[in-house]
Amino acid sequence: MKILRANIETGEIQYSEVPEHWRRTGGRGLVARFLLDEVPPLCDPLGPHNKLIWTPGLLVGHMLSSVDRISVGGKSPLTGGAKEANAGGTTGLLMAWLELHALIIEGGAPADGRWRVLYVGQDGARFEPADDLAGLGLSETARKLIARYHDKIGVSAIGPGGEMLYRSAGITHLDKDRNLTRISARGGLGAVMGSKRLKAIVFDRPPSNRPPVADPELFQAASRRYIQVLQEHPQTSEVYTFYGTAAMVNLCNTLGGLPTRNFSAGSFEGAERISGDAIHDLNSTRGGDISHACMPGCIIRCSNVYVGPDGEPIVSPLEYETIGLMGSNLGIDDPDVIARLNAVANELGVDTIEIGAALGVAAEAGLMEFGDGERALELIDEVRRGTPLGRIIGNGAVITGKVLGVSRVPAVKGQAISAYDPRAIKGTGVTYATSPQGADHTSGLTIRAKVDHTDPEGQVELSRGAQYRMAGYDTLGACIFGGFGMDKTLVRDLINGRYGWGVDENYLTDLGRETILLEREFNRRAGFTSADDRLPEWMTQEKLPPVNTAFDVPAEELDAIFEE
Amino acid sequence: MKILRANIETGEIQYSEVPEHWRRTGGRGLVARFLLDEVPPLCDPLGPHNKLIWTPGLLVGHMLSSVDRISVGGKSPLTGGAKEANAGGTTGLLMAWLELHALIIEGGAPADGRWRVLYVGQDGARFEPADDLAGLGLSETARKLIARYHDKIGVSAIGPGGEMLYRSAGITHLDKDRNLTRISARGGLGAVMGSKRLKAIVFDRPPSNRPPVADPELFQAASRRYIQVLQEHPQTSEVYTFYGTAAMVNLCNTLGGLPTRNFSAGSFEGAERISGDAIHDLNSTRGGDISHACMPGCIIRCSNVYVGPDGEPIVSPLEYETIGLMGSNLGIDDPDVIARLNAVANELGVDTIEIGAALGVAAEAGLMEFGDGERALELIDEVRRGTPLGRIIGNGAVITGKVLGVSRVPAVKGQAISAYDPRAIKGTGVTYATSPQGADHTSGLTIRAKVDHTDPEGQVELSRGAQYRMAGYDTLGACIFGGFGMDKTLVRDLINGRYGWGVDENYLTDLGRETILLEREFNRRAGFTSADDRLPEWMTQEKLPPVNTAFDVPAEELDAIFEE
Repeated sequence: MKILRANIETGEIQYSEVPEHWRRTGGRGLVARFLLDEVPPLCDPLGPHNKLIWTPGLLVGHMLSSVDRISVGGKSPLTGGAKEANAGGTTGLLMAWLELHALIIEGGAPADGRWRVLYVGQDGARFEPADDLAGLGLSETARKLIARYHDKIGVSAIGPGGEMLYRSAGITHLDKDRNLTRISARGGLGAVMGSKRLKAIVFDRPPSNRPPVADPELFQAASRRYIQVLQEHPQTSEVYTFYGTAAMVNLCNTLGGLPTRNFSAGSFEGAERISGDAIHDLNSTRGGDISHACMPGCIIRCSNVYVGPDGEPIVSPLEYETIGLMGSNLGIDDPDVIARLNAVANELGVDTIEIGAALGVAAEAGLMEFGDGERALELIDEVRRGTPLGRIIGNGAVITGKVLGVSRVPAVKGQAISAYDPRAIKGTGVTYATSPQGADHTSGLTIRAKVDHTDPEGQVELSRGAQYRMAGYDTLGACIFGGFGMDKTLVRDLINGRYGWGVDENYLTDLGRETILLEREFNRRAGFTSADDRLPEWMTQEKLPPVNTAFDVPAEELDAIFEE
Repeated sequence: MKILRANIETGEIQYSEVPEHWRRTGGRGLVARFLLDEVPPLCDPLGPHNKLIWTPGLLVGHMLSSVDRISVGGKSPLTGGAKEANAGGTTGLLMAWLELHALIIEGGAPADGRWRVLYVGQDGARFEPADDLAGLGLSETARKLIARYHDKIGVSAIGPGGEMLYRSAGITHLDKDRNLTRISARGGLGAVMGSKRLKAIVFDRPPSNRPPVADPELFQAASRRYIQVLQEHPQTSEVYTFYGTAAMVNLCNTLGGLPTRNFSAGSFEGAERISGDAIHDLNSTRGGDISHACMPGCIIRCSNVYVGPDGEPIVSPLEYETIGLMGSNLGIDDPDVIARLNAVANELGVDTIEIGAALGVAAEAGLMEFGDGERALELIDEVRRGTPLGRIIGNGAVITGKVLGVSRVPAVKGQAISAYDPRAIKGTGVTYATSPQGADHTSGLTIRAKVDHTDPEGQVELSRGAQYRMAGYDTLGACIFGGFGMDKTLVRDLINGRYGWGVDENYLTDLGRETILLEREFNRRAGFTSADDRLPEWMTQEKLPPVNTAFDVPAEELDAIFEE
């Protein structure tokens, strides 16, 4: 395994050995070490001293179901702190097959101001011109890159959102069916890529080249056990397979935590129309694909291809977070409108959570009536066109609130809260507040715990465990849903099978804890304090109907969460 | 002396004794104590838990030249930290005559959403309706208030900028000639006032009621000595009197520190046309007032009334900071255009430094050509009209940079740098970096020191002294120019004369140091760290022509500035 460094400012390409202390980590864990080792914590995130890293998780490369994820990292222009954003698709797998432990993009924009593609082949890498791709949406970008190279490539690219340096812009990866739709969405890493004038990275596809395995018997046995659990668990064999993440709509609405009209309520009268059931039935009737895998080997297949009344695809995938933020959060109960908003966001390569939250804030400012889908589509078209109003919204919920004079902004560390209201699901609220990543459910969702989610007691402990596990999975390259099939002994066996390190069953949480502490250290150096580990003031004071409670986990408990 | 508290949310008015530990301070020093005592450091600056305080300095009330300033304070929506913004005019004097040590506005916007005026009379205070003033510029606001009350009132008011919650909005005070032009400009306190729906405070004018003096002989002698020094110092008896602050244009241009085209150069080819000489001559020829006092008793009279070719006033005053930020910083060398930009800003009640810097950033983003005055006037008209683009610019340089994707933003702690480029005047750069107030020349200007201003050595010490003195003057109620007439023994005598406290000659700097440490403590609780005590990264790397140096005072020195 190698480290590939590509300096876009100078054009220099360099392969090197993996530094000793980077060998036992990958994915999110490696992003954290990389940030501490190489990125000046006070640098301008959109300046020449920020860097971007691509690194597959530790277990990537084996087409193990849901475990071939790619992590992208850098200093976030949205939060100003450590950022790792992972995604499915094929980038992780191809990097492992190309024997790359990490790919690091260095330098500022080239002096000629022109756009580049980085091509990473089996025999080296090179920057190539890409001005012909500038301004193109992601579908067209994918088509052109596939035509220029070949149809087995992997791609990580930005859309016009990243080109316009929107702090909502992500980096999108090709899925197994050549759709450029799997987005490392959160924290604005697409703007970092845009600031360097890097439109895309193209990964060549070598012949199958699974990483070596130290103890094949142990690894195979563990892999089989993992698959078996996934196949037997109703959540991963039925619920997500048939209903996708949209299955969360009913659960969250029932718990009173479905963001509604800019987080002013936690249950939505139109929830039924946008529920997993309703979308499944509608999409099936129209001939859409209800069970679509984003990466080779995934047996959960939680994605879908959502089609319109004419049977033509509108968007893929239509996910719960988007339904929550661009649907109920805007008072919109028409799945077709949500899908169309989602499609525009996908073409732009922007985070639907951030944009949905920003639209909610814009609605609060009077720029649209809640529930007016056509107006929401007009607003997102402003984002697409890069008008002043579009640039406001495109830079996320916090900027939108500041510019439009709205205090009710759902965000932590500058990043929008995802589709679980923290007053109804308080453990997840603790995660939003304390995760070094900013508000992010994938950093430690607690909704499946059998507790009273509105009771402030015990939520810090719940969140801590979830955060450690998630940071662990993100370091392994495992999808959040892979966690249904992985317990700590399974992770131990997979790692020992793959690497022969002889880790114990605390490995997963130790790995996660270490990663979080490294991220917190980077954030500390970047100027973060406990003041940043807080939900917005109004969420601690405004009670959420219908659960009728504010966020009341004590600040001292938040501050002590990682001090054990 | 009393404390007057007025809760705009409940309408409650309360007079109380001055707390013991508030008695020996006023102005900026009292703002700092008030913030620590009463404002939750993590509160939303535009939410109901922020408060605003009006407090005259310790020596206010005697019509001593340049020493009747009013300090307004609160948590800044621009910086997120401690903010004190002082101004001339008559508010300070009238508060002293009304025997008010401080006026504190509490609570959030009234439930009816209507605008209020607070009337402070000799026999009490009351909120009155002010919906008829909503949306009015400051001239019209002044006219209506004078018509409604009488022509001897004092007024502190916000313009449409504060109503629209612009983070560039200040609070403007009536001057001695009933012009609403003396602005507590920096840090967005006007937006705080707007968030509470308080359009104006009207102060009745009691018969002359100078505060009691403990040792009249000492006080009178010191006062006479002070006036004599001012009268004899060429800077305060000639330069500022005839040329106003515009006299700085030539000095700063010569030192290579005149902000030019978004701080990309420090000397401006059009400097001669916008110099103090040129403006003085032009304005004299046209019949403008070249020596105008903002407060009764001021003998320096540094202000002016700038008139157009037709002899009609365009703006008053036309100040150096405005000429720097709205002139050379935009590549504009036409004083009439600068005056017209200034006039729009004054009517809106926004900080010309912040707006000028934001326009520079907008120009860098391609929204105007540097030097195109008509386009600049169009852009500021967007600010006036509250269009999306106008709201972006109205929220200041940092927001403008974020939304428009510009990294070259001249700001510290979210607040725009004033008209001394910190790479050419490095002591002032140290002040920008380390002042708890954010970038602000009035927190410690070093330009008059006889040193090599481009040499990084010794600048921290220079800034420290200037910051202590300025925080001291701001606590006394003394104008920055009053400092020409005040040394440490004079301050000692004035204070001992007025109060009989028996302070020594270290009093001024002790007072300043204490004030700064209190502000830093508030900022610390609000989440500030040494990461906030930095100039923008690009200013440490991009050399400034013609001095050809970047800002290179070491970070460790910045961090140690107040540790003595």
